[in-house]
Parts: sequence; structure tokens; C-alpha cells
Amino acid sequence: METSHMATTRKATTHWEGNLLQGSGTVTLESSGIGSYAVSWPSRAEEANGKTSPEELIAAAHSSCYSMALSHGLAQAGTPPTRVDTSAEVTFQPGTGITGIHLTVRAAVPGLDAAAFAEAAENAKQNCPVSQALAGTTITLTAELAE
Amino acid sequence: METSHMATTRKATTHWEGNLLQGSGTVTLESSGIGSYAVSWPSRAEEANGKTSPEELIAAAHSSCYSMALSHGLAQAGTPPTRVDTSAEVTFQPGTGITGIHLTVRAAVPGLDAAAFAEAAENAKQNCPVSQALAGTTITLTAELAE
Repeated sequence: METSHMATTRKATTHWEGNLLQGSGTVTLESSGIGSYAVSWPSRAEEANGKTSPEELIAAAHSSCYSMALSHGLAQAGTPPTRVDTSAEVTFQPGTGITGIHLTVRAAVPGLDAAAFAEAAENAKQNCPVSQALAGTTITLTAELAE
Repeated sequence: METSHMATTRKATTHWEGNLLQGSGTVTLESSGIGSYAVSWPSRAEEANGKTSPEELIAAAHSSCYSMALSHGLAQAGTPPTRVDTSAEVTFQPGTGITGIHLTVRAAVPGLDAAAFAEAAENAKQNCPVSQALAGTTITLTAELAE
């Protein structure tokens, strides 16, 4: 947006051994170098059991991108938020795929009324880069102004 | 696929304070409970500097989903891989969005020839659930059989 017009690339890798149901993998966040995490089929299709999954990682990407987009939109409108809390819940139907993502945002925005907040929240849902990339699934939103 | 036909939901949250450029956030992988990680605008648009970003998290989701899909496809064809290594590189153009994802896979598959591997790798690119959700961006693939 403002500070840079250079494209950037971010990288992660997965090492997988074994078949889908009993096999296991390790996903590594290469660009940040912050760590490697276990991933498995049961962690996405049954219980998470302390392991991450593609769907949890999509939820993390979406909640963070959405929070940035909403913060930026509100600030550009002259009403910067003091905090934004976003959850993303990604639903996975084995055999079908990622059937939906529900965003829930609660933000404290001094001086903003509920209608204007709802509009800004919807704009961020439509326009954040991760929402736009995720055009193959359905994204829904619940937005609430915090006190 | 085989073990479960129940839909599952995976959740992550982001807490954000401040504006886009100088503000900062924390993304938490709620379903697994494995941790919370710093995220910022510079970590996506400038240098990662030890922080994750929406694009790195998308790369993690995609590399893990792709690895599972390829492993499953190869096993179903009667040629299970002994290992699959996938990297995903997500390109972000500030002001435009996520402009592309490049997958690079290297897998050891006893008894499989290069042409059949290339076809299986392409099928996984087309059909893995994260690829299908990411219909709003361009996905490319380099696939190589390991010795």
C-alpha cells in the first residue's frame, strides 16, 4: 500500500511421510523461521489434538489479513481503531473441501457508529487480499463494535 | 475422505493494535493450541524479520494440503510415496494482492515413472482443497521425482 510497491514472496514447506490416514507431516514457516509444526490428516478431519492443519493455517492467514485491512480502512476514514479482534473459523468437509469461512470481528473504534462500522467491516471482508485469493469458498462475517 | 464424513471447523484469531504500517498483531492457532505468533505489515510487505504473515500462513496451508493430496492420490494409484517434500511460495504485491503461488514438489515414489508422477502432481494441484479454495489466485507447479 504506502510503504512499498515491490512484490514480496513468503515461503513455507511441508515434509510428509506415509499415507494420508496414518502418515504424518511437518510444516515449516521458512520466511520467518519461527518454527516447524506437526500436521496430520486426523488433525484436520477428526480432532486437532495439538496439531495444526491446512484449515487452521488458512484461518490464521485470514484473521490476520482481515485485521490489517479493517484497521487500515478505518484509519483512512479518519476513525482508527484502538484494537481489532478477529476470529476465522474454516469448515472442512472431507470429500468435498473447504466449504466456508466465518469471520467474527469485534473492534473498538472511537467516534464511529454501528452502521459505519458494519460498512467498513464488510469492505474489509470483500477486499482484503486473503479474501480475494479465497474466491473458491464462501466467506461470511459477524461484526460488532466493542465498548 | 475415508475415515470421517463429518464436517470439522478449525479456528484461529488475531488481535491487532495500532494502524497498518506501525501497528502490530498476534495470531493464535486456537484449535491446536500450539501457539501465538507476531504478525505485522512489514513482515508481509518488506522483510519477514522473524514474524509471520498472511502470505507465509497461506504457504503453510497450501504446502501441507498439497502434500496430503499428492500422497493420497499416489497411494490410491497403487504407488505410495515414501516421502513428499513440498514448498509453497506466495507472492504478494502491495496494492494488488496475492498475485500467485508456486508449488515445488519433490517426492520419492518407488516404481513410478516421470510422466505418471507429473500427472499425479498436477491432479493434486488442481484438486487439493486449499487449491480449490484459492481460486482467486494463480497456482503454478514444478514437480520432480526424487531418487
